[in-house]
Amino acid sequence: MANSIAQLFGIRYPIIQAGMVWASGWRLASAVSNAGGLGLLGAGSMYPEILREHIQKCKKATDKPFGVNIPLLYPDIDKLMEIIVEEKVTIVFTAAGNPKLWTEFLKTNGCIVVHVISSVKFALKAQVCGVDAIVAEGFEAGGHNGREETTTMTLIPLVKKAINLPLIAAGGIGSGQAMLAAMALGADGVQVGSRFVATPEASSHPDFKSEVLKAEQGSTELTLKELTPVRLLKNPFYDQIKKLYNEGASSEKLKEVLGRGRAKKGMFEGDLVEGELEIGQVAAQIDTLLPAESIVNEFITTYNATLKRLTPLG
Amino acid sequence: MANSIAQLFGIRYPIIQAGMVWASGWRLASAVSNAGGLGLLGAGSMYPEILREHIQKCKKATDKPFGVNIPLLYPDIDKLMEIIVEEKVTIVFTAAGNPKLWTEFLKTNGCIVVHVISSVKFALKAQVCGVDAIVAEGFEAGGHNGREETTTMTLIPLVKKAINLPLIAAGGIGSGQAMLAAMALGADGVQVGSRFVATPEASSHPDFKSEVLKAEQGSTELTLKELTPVRLLKNPFYDQIKKLYNEGASSEKLKEVLGRGRAKKGMFEGDLVEGELEIGQVAAQIDTLLPAESIVNEFITTYNATLKRLTPLG
Repeated sequence: MANSIAQLFGIRYPIIQAGMVWASGWRLASAVSNAGGLGLLGAGSMYPEILREHIQKCKKATDKPFGVNIPLLYPDIDKLMEIIVEEKVTIVFTAAGNPKLWTEFLKTNGCIVVHVISSVKFALKAQVCGVDAIVAEGFEAGGHNGREETTTMTLIPLVKKAINLPLIAAGGIGSGQAMLAAMALGADGVQVGSRFVATPEASSHPDFKSEVLKAEQGSTELTLKELTPVRLLKNPFYDQIKKLYNEGASSEKLKEVLGRGRAKKGMFEGDLVEGELEIGQVAAQIDTLLPAESIVNEFITTYNATLKRLTPLG
Repeated sequence: MANSIAQLFGIRYPIIQAGMVWASGWRLASAVSNAGGLGLLGAGSMYPEILREHIQKCKKATDKPFGVNIPLLYPDIDKLMEIIVEEKVTIVFTAAGNPKLWTEFLKTNGCIVVHVISSVKFALKAQVCGVDAIVAEGFEAGGHNGREETTTMTLIPLVKKAINLPLIAAGGIGSGQAMLAAMALGADGVQVGSRFVATPEASSHPDFKSEVLKAEQGSTELTLKELTPVRLLKNPFYDQIKKLYNEGASSEKLKEVLGRGRAKKGMFEGDLVEGELEIGQVAAQIDTLLPAESIVNEFITTYNATLKRLTPLG
């Protein structure tokens, strides 16, 4: 039987490269799509006209399907949506917001729409809104995350049971073994973020990539739980945020310190002291910088080898 | 090739029933062992002579291997160890403490020793101490847990890479699908806690079992992170602890409120208001009270069916 996620997007392997701020531009997305996965442009860190440029460049760099990830809280979201339609992007992943707002618009304009959630409740909401598939993201994932702290291992079976849509697992998936684990749990495909940061094609700053390679167990933490849960790589900026948070600083104060520029400073400009560094727990498993194509191939090879290694019990 | 965990313990299936306070006495342990898994008596909630009684009853109830789980911080631990030797228990799982203290003693007395950890660092320490296998427990697990908050999905590959011992995965494993996922990640067997609380054989209070069946996503939280991380089912006692913790109460104050009696009150006496209720995130997936034997059989059936469903990619 054909894989529902590969079929939905018209791709070879059900591996989606997460649309990550300051990491996934046209170079990474086209490389993943050319390798048989699905590349996503991370619109969250792009001005509208920059997104247009990346879409156009991505089209030139691959004749395979690719998509765009849009955080629904993006301030100029109308402009992003205009560009999506004008540039005839056919795959859109929406995240961090209410799927009611744009799903119908995108579907009317011929897009396949996928919504990212971290809870059963929002998976059901997204299903009602008519999305074509769901990404369920566990606690171990990098960047912004849910309040329930539900891990991928626990979340995937819960969401699978609740919805009737193709399901993509995210969070903690950095190898073909973890991909197979996700599929065993009931996922139809996987979304991989952190692993694709450690590629030459990611637009992330080389110094940030080095930090990802150095990361060990415990190097990240999900912080700001009551305000806006986000998994950060521990650095002096994280220490500062953590200290303020523990002292009971107001939301306003925290938002001021967080600011939007911090993520760019850290992940794009390579300021490892003052910048915000978002990465998943799985960074502890990542020791090599590899081309995106090699990562896709390694996932598939390991997936198949692991499946072959497993034998029935009893 | 034979499964290393099944071989180590001389059991049919590499499923270990976690030794849980106020849940796993001789009835549960013998039922799991009779079903082909490995039952463990949870010594943490037993006075030494009570443990002796449970060991003797367990021996009468099964001719299969079973073991004892001992938290190394147990106050009268010398007495527990004496009983282990006197009663010729041959399988001991140690947890919550330094494996240096008792591993050699237990090995000298002919025991197979397994140590429970939640970090690579302690896995390596346990290996140096000469244990025979490791249980690696993820963030989603119930009860006491590590500070790193590493999820099962991320932890298992890290520990697998670091050690040369048979590896048992714990945390979030409530079905044969999750068991297969754990094996794909590199585990040789699984330790299952929460799922076995929802059995008639568990000595937990029926009202606590009902709460486990009712649990949904977000019903548990890992709290007291700086003091002694523990995953609790949210109830008025949890609210009280959480409030004190957020107000910055001293360790002494928190320890006083926590007290040792709270766990017994909640899980054994069924006081859902004033008692401490320990359970894993996976409780959200548990909707039925089933005999331990049925759970073991269901795990194996689902494991094999899931393995059969998965096909190579590419």
